[in-house]
Amino acid sequence: MPRQSKPIQSNMGWSTVDRVVVQGLDLTQQLLGKVNLGDMAFLELTGRLPTPQQSAVFNAMLVTLVEHGLTPQAMVARLVHMSAPEALQAAVAAGLCGVGSVFAGGSEGAAKMLQEALTADPKAELAAVARAIVADFRGRRAVIPGLGHARHKPIDPRTPRLFEIAAANQLRGRYVALMELIAVEAERAYNRPLPINGTGAIGALCCELGFDWRIARGIAVIGRAVGLVGHLAEEIRQPIAREIHLRAEDECSTQAQKMHGSLMAS
Amino acid sequence: MPRQSKPIQSNMGWSTVDRVVVQGLDLTQQLLGKVNLGDMAFLELTGRLPTPQQSAVFNAMLVTLVEHGLTPQAMVARLVHMSAPEALQAAVAAGLCGVGSVFAGGSEGAAKMLQEALTADPKAELAAVARAIVADFRGRRAVIPGLGHARHKPIDPRTPRLFEIAAANQLRGRYVALMELIAVEAERAYNRPLPINGTGAIGALCCELGFDWRIARGIAVIGRAVGLVGHLAEEIRQPIAREIHLRAEDECSTQAQKMHGSLMAS
Amino acid sequence: MPRQSKPIQSNMGWSTVDRVVVQGLDLTQQLLGKVNLGDMAFLELTGRLPTPQQSAVFNAMLVTLVEHGLTPQAMVARLVHMSAPEALQAAVAAGLCGVGSVFAGGSEGAAKMLQEALTADPKAELAAVARAIVADFRGRRAVIPGLGHARHKPIDPRTPRLFEIAAANQLRGRYVALMELIAVEAERAYNRPLPINGTGAIGALCCELGFDWRIARGIAVIGRAVGLVGHLAEEIRQPIAREIHLRAEDECSTQAQKMHGSLMAS
Amino acid sequence: MPRQSKPIQSNMGWSTVDRVVVQGLDLTQQLLGKVNLGDMAFLELTGRLPTPQQSAVFNAMLVTLVEHGLTPQAMVARLVHMSAPEALQAAVAAGLCGVGSVFAGGSEGAAKMLQEALTADPKAELAAVARAIVADFRGRRAVIPGLGHARHKPIDPRTPRLFEIAAANQLRGRYVALMELIAVEAERAYNRPLPINGTGAIGALCCELGFDWRIARGIAVIGRAVGLVGHLAEEIRQPIAREIHLRAEDECSTQAQKMHGSLMAS
Repeated sequence: MPRQSKPIQSNMGWSTVDRVVVQGLDLTQQLLGKVNLGDMAFLELTGRLPTPQQSAVFNAMLVTLVEHGLTPQAMVARLVHMSAPEALQAAVAAGLCGVGSVFAGGSEGAAKMLQEALTADPKAELAAVARAIVADFRGRRAVIPGLGHARHKPIDPRTPRLFEIAAANQLRGRYVALMELIAVEAERAYNRPLPINGTGAIGALCCELGFDWRIARGIAVIGRAVGLVGHLAEEIRQPIAREIHLRAEDECSTQAQKMHGSLMAS
Repeated sequence: MPRQSKPIQSNMGWSTVDRVVVQGLDLTQQLLGKVNLGDMAFLELTGRLPTPQQSAVFNAMLVTLVEHGLTPQAMVARLVHMSAPEALQAAVAAGLCGVGSVFAGGSEGAAKMLQEALTADPKAELAAVARAIVADFRGRRAVIPGLGHARHKPIDPRTPRLFEIAAANQLRGRYVALMELIAVEAERAYNRPLPINGTGAIGALCCELGFDWRIARGIAVIGRAVGLVGHLAEEIRQPIAREIHLRAEDECSTQAQKMHGSLMAS
Repeated sequence: MPRQSKPIQSNMGWSTVDRVVVQGLDLTQQLLGKVNLGDMAFLELTGRLPTPQQSAVFNAMLVTLVEHGLTPQAMVARLVHMSAPEALQAAVAAGLCGVGSVFAGGSEGAAKMLQEALTADPKAELAAVARAIVADFRGRRAVIPGLGHARHKPIDPRTPRLFEIAAANQLRGRYVALMELIAVEAERAYNRPLPINGTGAIGALCCELGFDWRIARGIAVIGRAVGLVGHLAEEIRQPIAREIHLRAEDECSTQAQKMHGSLMAS
Repeated sequence: MPRQSKPIQSNMGWSTVDRVVVQGLDLTQQLLGKVNLGDMAFLELTGRLPTPQQSAVFNAMLVTLVEHGLTPQAMVARLVHMSAPEALQAAVAAGLCGVGSVFAGGSEGAAKMLQEALTADPKAELAAVARAIVADFRGRRAVIPGLGHARHKPIDPRTPRLFEIAAANQLRGRYVALMELIAVEAERAYNRPLPINGTGAIGALCCELGFDWRIARGIAVIGRAVGLVGHLAEEIRQPIAREIHLRAEDECSTQAQKMHGSLMAS
């Protein structure tokens, strides 16, 4: 017996001869000239436009995620662009492939940790929750997401600024409070500085804005996509990918030939 | 003789223990809470923050590019997410791979056409330039980029709105004028409606904002990245990829078995 | 104090004016005309050419992985090719992005499970190991990798054939034996048919050939890359991506308009 | 009026409860243990198994394409793997994104050039065709695809070996002859050594095997996919991506800080 087909549905957007509708709103009449790209991203993710407060906080989060200098992802985008300049989209795509657990895991993991804790018991006493979380991670010898930074010590300068913006917009709530208590408890338990890093702050603010943790990595992806196109614009003006490639290839090739030569001689 | 190493340089961003600097600006002091994501994209692409007028026009361009319903790219992102839900970044990357000549070629091609025409002679008489361009494309039997639309007839509603926003911000200049003259001349030469479409309008506005045409596709990529994350957010809430896949696989599989069966029988 | 640079090294390949060396072998003298693509893959992964027995088993594994009909990955490659026909490599790349946990997890997971079990105690009694593994997975309510198949019941026809080839080449050893005992024990514990599926068989054979489980997914990626190029060759001759796209877009668009209309009317 | 749905069809593969059929052949009975991966690729691309002669030549072409040392694509795959080790498929995909015009353009372009020339007039006198082609490229100041190599001078060692294998298998025909005449004519016209390079040889052999030039890049993609998985296997055993990244980031960051400092001081 053949499978029964089921209906499919998507409400993201549609158009007619003279209209373009996005999330139920008329693109030209209700969006163009009225909302910025960050607000549009909020609309795409949630189905509704942000309040001015949500807009301020969400744009700050996204702006934080855009640029981090010559990351591996930026190198990747530049190397692909050098090899396939006719397909700029593939260079950005290749760079985004690297927004994985090592680089984007912090905000996703922090959002997951906070949501699971407060979904189970929305009225829980936060200090007790923080103690339980830290004990659980310590017991599993797992790294607590969103804490500590290799360079920014003792504090990550992005975190207080992001929380300040959240407070100014009445969006510094229980998730931020829990994240801060987790950091305090972790510093006590591990007896070393473990400040909330930028991705931890963003993970907490994802929760305050009501985003499912499953989409937190997507917010990092949006920010990085902007940054990678920026790096390609610089690469077009001032190329460095070829030099980076030649240096590495020369070193490996010279070394491999030496090894090969001594193997042959031996 | 070994190759001499050359210095490499990138001014996109760097950080110290207590500072993050992007494009020479302090992230926490000069950017967070002050600029939106569209402005940040402008900063990344050009090295300077936009004026309020540039911000208005650039954000409108980006917002236009975000959402187009269930495009092939959106389907791709959803299908990859279904297959590799643990790697959301790869789903967006796969979708972006499809922002190629068929979908993003319009704005890139229009920007190239306009820039090449007005770079050669910045003071050229625009109507003559338009006639020469249309004659050239016709002679080569090439499609003029940025004109015509399969659905939006006789006009693409995005174009007048984008040009209206540009005019309100003193950014409706010679590139837009040339694009409009090209459309008029093309309609005359081909004797059918060939209005400036959304990507044509965006290509012309890229020129007004001073972007190199080589990065125009990158602006489409930024917009689409936002849209694709939006589609994944919807896919998580309301999945359709599996049904789309099963329908296509069932149909092809049934048909292939029938063919095979009749080949065996014959 | 600046970081001290460390040497980098890669022995994959290098060339001089008149030679190309791959893995220490002369490409034109020692490889071309002498080895097939599967053997070359073995050389790339392990640094040495396969024995005839290893070649037979490894090629059979790879051949198994190539083609699975209109998978989500094949649909993805076709949709991207339709959107960016000038960048065929991006279409394959997009398709490969979907070789994730859902589709390639089986062989990776099975190889990991088997290697961890027999690394801990290479001389362990296999039946006891199998019982411990099944009990562990049951206790964690986790799915045992490499067992069961939605369509191929009660047995996956690929498994006996792959194990037969392995036996004929003296490569059906303790890993295959353990996998089979796990299947028997799982069928007993869960009281339903749980035969070793194709990816489970391949995972076990990865172990017999000495591959680290961390690279098992790479073997699936190689097979799928071949298959995706095959689908693009068919798509060029006999396109279906546009129709697949239009059907889905039409259905979603029509439905969204209806919903929007009734919202407006209410 | 709604669009009329059209049937879709794919004959790549399908399966039933107890059978897997690929290209009309039974996977377990007719393929496993009987064909190698290169033959399987031929089957996927053409719908039929290769003759022994075709198998020899096609495997040699594929083997040639696998490994080229630390290419930009290999660096990309390694950098992505370092950032997202959990998604090995995305690392290969990112590397493949760079198999574009700069690296894979040679074989595609050569195949296109040869096919267009001999399709127009299959019985044309080859020397005259070669002269016309060289004159055409020179007139357009375009680079003739498949000729010349930065390192391999005066000859690319892969070319004579590949043509030798083709001759030994009765597959050195008119396309190879035309490619050789083009090289002779180009060396005469440009008055410098312009030997057929490896990609040029492969482009000509694609024609001898009857492949459409539109899929020639796909053959490079298959070879590179194998090589990239090889590089990831080495990266797992002996990582270099982090060092490559840190060197580049350190240099750019130090330089950018100096510039910034002098700007602040001025």
